[in-house]
Amino acid sequence: MLDENIAELLAEKQKEISVSEFFERNKHVLGFDSPVKSLITAVKEGVDNALDACEEAGILPEIRVEIRKVEKNEYLIAIQDNGPGIVKRNIPKVFGQLLYGSRFHAIRQSRGQQGIGISGVVMCSQLTTGRPARILSKTAGKMAADEIILSIDTKHNRPEVVREDVVLWDEVEHGTRIEVYLRGRLIRGRQSVYEYLRRTAIVNPHAKITYIEEDRKYIFERATERLPKKTVEIKPHPYGVELGTLLKMIKHSKNRQINSFLMNEFSRVSPRVADEICSVAGIDQKKRPKEITVEEAKALINAMRKVRIMAPPSDCLSPIGAHLIKKGLRNVMEEYKPEYYVPPVTREPAVYSGNPFQVEVGMVYGGNLPKDQPVEILRFANRVPLLYQQGACAITHAIERIKWKQYGLEQRGGKGIPNGPAVILVHIASTRVPFTSEAKEAVADIPEIIEEIGKALKECARHLRFHIKKREKKKKVRDKFEIVQKIIPEIARKSAEIVGKPVPPIDRTITKIMGILWVDSVSEYGKGIYDVRIKVINYMEKRAKFSLYTEIERESIRDAEPEGRRSGRGIVWDISLKPTESLEIRLKLRGEKGDYDDIELYTDGINPVHVIGAEPLPGDWNVERAEIIEVME
Amino acid sequence: MLDENIAELLAEKQKEISVSEFFERNKHVLGFDSPVKSLITAVKEGVDNALDACEEAGILPEIRVEIRKVEKNEYLIAIQDNGPGIVKRNIPKVFGQLLYGSRFHAIRQSRGQQGIGISGVVMCSQLTTGRPARILSKTAGKMAADEIILSIDTKHNRPEVVREDVVLWDEVEHGTRIEVYLRGRLIRGRQSVYEYLRRTAIVNPHAKITYIEEDRKYIFERATERLPKKTVEIKPHPYGVELGTLLKMIKHSKNRQINSFLMNEFSRVSPRVADEICSVAGIDQKKRPKEITVEEAKALINAMRKVRIMAPPSDCLSPIGAHLIKKGLRNVMEEYKPEYYVPPVTREPAVYSGNPFQVEVGMVYGGNLPKDQPVEILRFANRVPLLYQQGACAITHAIERIKWKQYGLEQRGGKGIPNGPAVILVHIASTRVPFTSEAKEAVADIPEIIEEIGKALKECARHLRFHIKKREKKKKVRDKFEIVQKIIPEIARKSAEIVGKPVPPIDRTITKIMGILWVDSVSEYGKGIYDVRIKVINYMEKRAKFSLYTEIERESIRDAEPEGRRSGRGIVWDISLKPTESLEIRLKLRGEKGDYDDIELYTDGINPVHVIGAEPLPGDWNVERAEIIEVME
Repeated sequence: MLDENIAELLAEKQKEISVSEFFERNKHVLGFDSPVKSLITAVKEGVDNALDACEEAGILPEIRVEIRKVEKNEYLIAIQDNGPGIVKRNIPKVFGQLLYGSRFHAIRQSRGQQGIGISGVVMCSQLTTGRPARILSKTAGKMAADEIILSIDTKHNRPEVVREDVVLWDEVEHGTRIEVYLRGRLIRGRQSVYEYLRRTAIVNPHAKITYIEEDRKYIFERATERLPKKTVEIKPHPYGVELGTLLKMIKHSKNRQINSFLMNEFSRVSPRVADEICSVAGIDQKKRPKEITVEEAKALINAMRKVRIMAPPSDCLSPIGAHLIKKGLRNVMEEYKPEYYVPPVTREPAVYSGNPFQVEVGMVYGGNLPKDQPVEILRFANRVPLLYQQGACAITHAIERIKWKQYGLEQRGGKGIPNGPAVILVHIASTRVPFTSEAKEAVADIPEIIEEIGKALKECARHLRFHIKKREKKKKVRDKFEIVQKIIPEIARKSAEIVGKPVPPIDRTITKIMGILWVDSVSEYGKGIYDVRIKVINYMEKRAKFSLYTEIERESIRDAEPEGRRSGRGIVWDISLKPTESLEIRLKLRGEKGDYDDIELYTDGINPVHVIGAEPLPGDWNVERAEIIEVME
Repeated sequence: MLDENIAELLAEKQKEISVSEFFERNKHVLGFDSPVKSLITAVKEGVDNALDACEEAGILPEIRVEIRKVEKNEYLIAIQDNGPGIVKRNIPKVFGQLLYGSRFHAIRQSRGQQGIGISGVVMCSQLTTGRPARILSKTAGKMAADEIILSIDTKHNRPEVVREDVVLWDEVEHGTRIEVYLRGRLIRGRQSVYEYLRRTAIVNPHAKITYIEEDRKYIFERATERLPKKTVEIKPHPYGVELGTLLKMIKHSKNRQINSFLMNEFSRVSPRVADEICSVAGIDQKKRPKEITVEEAKALINAMRKVRIMAPPSDCLSPIGAHLIKKGLRNVMEEYKPEYYVPPVTREPAVYSGNPFQVEVGMVYGGNLPKDQPVEILRFANRVPLLYQQGACAITHAIERIKWKQYGLEQRGGKGIPNGPAVILVHIASTRVPFTSEAKEAVADIPEIIEEIGKALKECARHLRFHIKKREKKKKVRDKFEIVQKIIPEIARKSAEIVGKPVPPIDRTITKIMGILWVDSVSEYGKGIYDVRIKVINYMEKRAKFSLYTEIERESIRDAEPEGRRSGRGIVWDISLKPTESLEIRLKLRGEKGDYDDIELYTDGINPVHVIGAEPLPGDWNVERAEIIEVME
């Protein structure tokens, strides 16, 4: 027989736990699970906040990160920005209370979201060193800065201001600086603070980042003066809304009718769509929201999923763009002298559970990149580098699912991360990136996201395959050509000698043996101008009549000789060459180093099996690129 | 010039976020990231709580899980136990408030810890179906049960009681039942509710689990009547304490002197150890805790790490034990008719950051297990199966690091999960299992834990290697033996025929060719008794004098003929056999099916290269097994 008091005894132990106690105990879920990672996480949270604050206020970010050892395994970390600063009364809560922030309820792309990051840093600092944090904040137009020394009462999750003061801070016109002491370990290599900032610089070319580690100073210069497109806050989209959320929205709504509720509180719900939702749900459009039952709400949800509604607006997202991805990669990859920068792909925005997201992929191939190792994967989410948990990330899983062999990379057993001299960059931008944990190290396996990454990867991979094929074909043909050019004249000479006749003309013979149209291009760069020469030789027995297409941004074209025709994507030449005849095209293109090292050439009107050095023109040159190539497979 | 109002404008957006709003938004970190997983997570949280409650009250658990479809993608889930029940006034908070629980501050092994699990289920239920949860609770000695219908006010993280009542509930004398409606999807296979409960049954052989899925009913019967050793709550160990925690402990301490503070609030701190810590830290033992500065606290922490302190007591842990692991595996693996159950290994308790933990490993090999696939890994933490995130788990990483080739399993490229007909079970018991996220799906890569798992794996793997080698050797020798037995007499007959003489005796010749000592054992089981026959044949040219050791639990031995000597681990026979002479040993052993299917035999005093069917006796037979085998490598 069970003791009658036992439930009572057990009840006495049941207590409330504060959210900061919870995270203090589980600090590894915030990214503080090892001394090395702790430093990176602290820097990451500070830099995320700094970049978000600057962008929100429309300021070109100037970030300064300092790390100094104060004793064995203890470092002083300072992160400073030129953002708008924080008003004094909010400073304690922003830095000293977990789950306090401005971006939690807003639906738009930003780095921080939960209001845990930076207060988590302050908490771990205090936990590992016993020291409070120091915050400096100066808002626009103020002469002096507020200085607040701050710790966290973790038992109650509230800030404790140790001291406050007003100080002079001339270094910036406005901005925020946080200083914390943290137990940690500073290392070099792939998972270091330096590497973290370097990768941050790749996807934030509009930021200037200065990093001072002990007595060394690194500067990642700004590569563009243009701020990323400012993201707009949107309303929730009907496709993603959960029943519980809908009930909560209905409860707090001030709308008098259910159709106006739908129109006003959701994005992409026009009067027509609102009426259609109501009619599919079998609910009177004029019904008062307060009178909606759970069953009716459920009917509304089902109706929302049946009615065709436009995808959410994408101005809540701010992708990096192909141009800046290439620039960023070039910046990092220079030392490897890669032979090919695959044109980066920025997909159209897509949606998972009502959350808009957008995928971007870039690739680098060849040169001195290691040939027999897995390719390097650079993962980013909302412009933040992901250094840890590669194996648990949807980005990695999407890469592993591609059949890389058919695109020219090795892949053991036909699955897994491919081997080869390549780097793959993947960026996911979303109003809500679904991370697998609070440490935000890996993206969860959402099918829609994996699919989008897969499509972008395949598009890049197709370019890579074209490139590798072209290179191989050219090499083979060149080898054959060289042999033919040596042997045929020799045979002709010998034969003539034997029969005692003059050596016959052999150009035609060579042509007959080769039977190809040769296309080749060489680019030279200097002072903002690319000098490109395209050579076309007809080594076929018959006249070659075809069109040659280039892919060049219209604004880049300064001169073309012969002039050709302009098309939506570049220039087209209609060419006719007799056997052995050749043509040279010269282009002058404006651009930055790297833009046109290897221009894309396509032919049309000629059997592609005869062409070396150019690809067949994709199906319909005028439709959206992703689709063209999709069709080809 | 920046607008002076911008900081003020931004400040207005900064708001508090409630912890349930946070988890509502991030429900995937609680394990609700897909419809399939949601159902499993709900069952898991309920069953965890049920088992914990029963064990805490010393009750043999009887758990009942019911799942019924109520409409498309919506299920009613009920989890019921015969635990002590929950007192009425606490029910709302236990089920309707996140971060409320009894085990957060207690240092001992338990399944639940954070006070998030079951209230998370209620929250997701309400979010996805809009329906409240129903709780029934009956405490010992009560005639009726309390019924509470409950939802969560997520804006403020507090329970809302929709209705309460007193109802008759005769099914149990005392216990708790929770019913929730949940959006989800019910599937079969490796990641199903059924599989989850099956695995739960493996490591909780003391629980009876009934599972009702629609109109099917599965019962996992209790395999032992013994409750797991009750775990004892311990104080924190000095090795793991963080500075911030120490400062908090000092602040709230009622001790008058720092040495009594150390002795009373930490485990394993004797008066001598307390004095040593103070003296290494350079602090007066009699100093009042309130007067300790941050610098002094830091000195104390450093001193704690220098002074030798006993490992934390292990009675806060409750491992499953080799016997029950084997039983559990046998229960699941029967259908594959495996040829070998590797003796499971339970390591001694170890410590990471002051948290005691203990690792157990079991393995199954051969039979109809698939040969050319990766081995199946069964992961458990505190008796809870881990079904997801295998790739991100320390258990998997430890397995991947072993060089399996040397133990007889295939491993591509010498790393990664091995291939072969095997199943590996790993259980980690700890006062604090370091999960990578709140969903508790994978164990974080703590070096000490990976090392301990590695050691246990190697120990099992060595047994496996012995087994595979023995089998291979025996097969070779048997093949050779068969050939020799056929051919030699034939040659003898032919030769005799040719020379016209009688056929010579050939036993000696066979012996000469074979040159081995043959050891073989056969076990038969019936009615709680193993009948084991060990056969020893001397196929060497000279007399064999040696000792034969068995490894048998002393209590199991009922009869042995010849009797032999008892040793610490079993029986020893001192044997002397002339060439071609043989000996049969018969044993009667008490045991359960599976205990002695393949008994371990060792020889001593004979060159092991001549022995087939027994391994050389490990270095020192009397020291702890793990160490013996360690030495051998």
